[in-house]
Amino acid sequence: MSEDSSKPVRIGLLGHGTVGAAFAELLAERAGAVEAATGRRPEICGVLTREEGDFGEILGRSDLIVELMGGTDPARDFVLDALRAGKPVVTANKQLLATHGDELFAIAREAGVQLRFEAAVAAVIPIVRTIQESFGVTDIARVFGIVNGTTNFILTEMAATGATYEGALARAQELGYAEADPTDDVNGADAAAKMAILARLAFHTPVAFDEVAYEGIEQIKPDDLAYAKELGLSLKLLGVAERRGAGISVRVFPCFLYAGHPLSPIGGPFNAVMVEAPAITEVTMSGPGAGGVQTASAVLGDVVSILAGDAPVHETRENLSMVSDVASSFYLHLEVADQPGVLAEIAQLLGDNEISVKSVVQRGVDDDASLVMVLHECLESRFAAAIEQIATLDYMRSAPRSIRVIEEQPLP
Amino acid sequence: MSEDSSKPVRIGLLGHGTVGAAFAELLAERAGAVEAATGRRPEICGVLTREEGDFGEILGRSDLIVELMGGTDPARDFVLDALRAGKPVVTANKQLLATHGDELFAIAREAGVQLRFEAAVAAVIPIVRTIQESFGVTDIARVFGIVNGTTNFILTEMAATGATYEGALARAQELGYAEADPTDDVNGADAAAKMAILARLAFHTPVAFDEVAYEGIEQIKPDDLAYAKELGLSLKLLGVAERRGAGISVRVFPCFLYAGHPLSPIGGPFNAVMVEAPAITEVTMSGPGAGGVQTASAVLGDVVSILAGDAPVHETRENLSMVSDVASSFYLHLEVADQPGVLAEIAQLLGDNEISVKSVVQRGVDDDASLVMVLHECLESRFAAAIEQIATLDYMRSAPRSIRVIEEQPLP
Repeated sequence: MSEDSSKPVRIGLLGHGTVGAAFAELLAERAGAVEAATGRRPEICGVLTREEGDFGEILGRSDLIVELMGGTDPARDFVLDALRAGKPVVTANKQLLATHGDELFAIAREAGVQLRFEAAVAAVIPIVRTIQESFGVTDIARVFGIVNGTTNFILTEMAATGATYEGALARAQELGYAEADPTDDVNGADAAAKMAILARLAFHTPVAFDEVAYEGIEQIKPDDLAYAKELGLSLKLLGVAERRGAGISVRVFPCFLYAGHPLSPIGGPFNAVMVEAPAITEVTMSGPGAGGVQTASAVLGDVVSILAGDAPVHETRENLSMVSDVASSFYLHLEVADQPGVLAEIAQLLGDNEISVKSVVQRGVDDDASLVMVLHECLESRFAAAIEQIATLDYMRSAPRSIRVIEEQPLP
Repeated sequence: MSEDSSKPVRIGLLGHGTVGAAFAELLAERAGAVEAATGRRPEICGVLTREEGDFGEILGRSDLIVELMGGTDPARDFVLDALRAGKPVVTANKQLLATHGDELFAIAREAGVQLRFEAAVAAVIPIVRTIQESFGVTDIARVFGIVNGTTNFILTEMAATGATYEGALARAQELGYAEADPTDDVNGADAAAKMAILARLAFHTPVAFDEVAYEGIEQIKPDDLAYAKELGLSLKLLGVAERRGAGISVRVFPCFLYAGHPLSPIGGPFNAVMVEAPAITEVTMSGPGAGGVQTASAVLGDVVSILAGDAPVHETRENLSMVSDVASSFYLHLEVADQPGVLAEIAQLLGDNEISVKSVVQRGVDDDASLVMVLHECLESRFAAAIEQIATLDYMRSAPRSIRVIEEQPLP
């Protein structure tokens, strides 16, 4: 790659579907931040689509190739050509890596250039970097992964609504969580490709897609989910890569998890990966496992790592002020004498301070009444003023107690 | 750092407490793996404790310094000296970075050497690397963190048992989750130091410990937790670093989360960090936030990153065999004619195959009976043999259905 830092870094983009288009947009939006972080401004110097562009020409004028075409043909040839030409490659292509990983990594090593692929597994969850770098010498015992968002959405929907597999799949298609032809997602093949990649990294051993045994979720009945609830279980399509004796086992299958398992709360189209090793106990990472901009973010992270080269020392590039008065939502616990009009007066006083009440629990026998409220978000200075006034009311039996509440609701 | 790859990398270790001793042990155990991954064999060339060793002498013969003493004095002088001498430093020292970060990073940049500190926040959860590298150019909106294991244990204990703050603290001390003097943990100062570090990285802006407003959990009453349960809330000591208008806000306070929030299931001494940004939606990472070997693992990950230099291309170094017959636990769903002796016969048949039953749900009206079992772990080949036999029984109304169960129970 050209090292002249006065020139922009020219990126050849292969593929301009959902992820490709999102990457081009995100790169333009964050070009300034990339330049601030790495000293190099990136720009796209050519886009190859099925209809337009010539790969050889684009490769010739690129410093770095981003491959977002998917599939193995012609992606394999293009990536190999780029590596052989000494150009680093970032790819999100799980099929390519799961099928031709050995060849691609060998050529990249020979050429001495980087081949990065964070986006190939679980989109923006940085599991590739974590296993390769943070846990690169960790004696990993097992990797559990919910690495297919389509099937996790379908199973979540079946459990929540009692829907059949077919009904939940139709709903997933409606919401854009499943493709028109969902075969590779629902039969476990997509997850198997991702687990092949994670197993290779975790165990430093060649693992190819065709060595991964996989089962899908097409046979799951609403019945199974109903019984599971009775048994305290939740159903996931799980990838499991683990040491077994002197060998390893890498498989994908629908399976039940007990409540309390770190992967059991992962719902909807989210992905999650859990890594177990004696020296780390367990680390779990979750987030959106697909989506154009989310996948593009992972690709951009890889591009930045290539541009940054040897890890630079942290340097601040902003000088943001610290905001002192912020809006928060509060839980408010008041011990009051149980007399008429207390709730009304306190609600009025809060209202005068432009604070509104979201929910109330009132309990009281004689003198021993408690009033517990959750308030809507308000400036903390206003809340403090209201509390000061409330504290002086003559029916207060002790000082008001308050605890903040994070209002944020979980994502769908 | 000396680049002669035939010589071992000499590591000067400052501090030999719980983490220091665990690091020395882990390094010895994984030295071969480090050499395989980086081409350099690491060895400890000197240990500085309060009683023994001379810092200048150790620095002189080290290629790299690992600082695990804690506190700012004399750690600050030692780290500055090492950086000025051109030796990369790995530290787990949150106080040091939160208080003297600007100075340390400036000197490291000047000297052109790495200063790594993954273990300073949330031990083995790779949140520092993730924010610095994966999300280095991401427009982060907010970082939520449960970054103190002591307080998370205490709050989990109070919620689960109805214990008072004092009772739960005593229990935490008994189990080694709280120190004899827990002040900095329970008053929020420890979490504030960690949030100062995360905020600096997330927002690329100087943030010092004394700019972080923090509150602790000493005032929490069992009452608050009881009411919270009624309101569907769980209580955490949360660090929040977020953009607010043109500035940022960095704070630590006890607060309630709604069920379904990604941080709400994080219990016991575990830590978790959630990063939000438009382009990534949200990514959550959780794991043990303390512990000797877990913290040492994060330190070792940093050492390996320094030795590896520019990201090497993935290379396999093992050739493990794929195990085909593994042990699994199963859920088994049988639709049977409702006649006497069915359960007994099936249990017998499973027993003949050395498969034992863990739990059973039986339901039946006339012909319409279902038998649902969870079985203990057994070799999948044995299970397949048993299923084949069961399928031939004349009272089976349809083919047996089975789904694997992950038996693993959550950690305490």
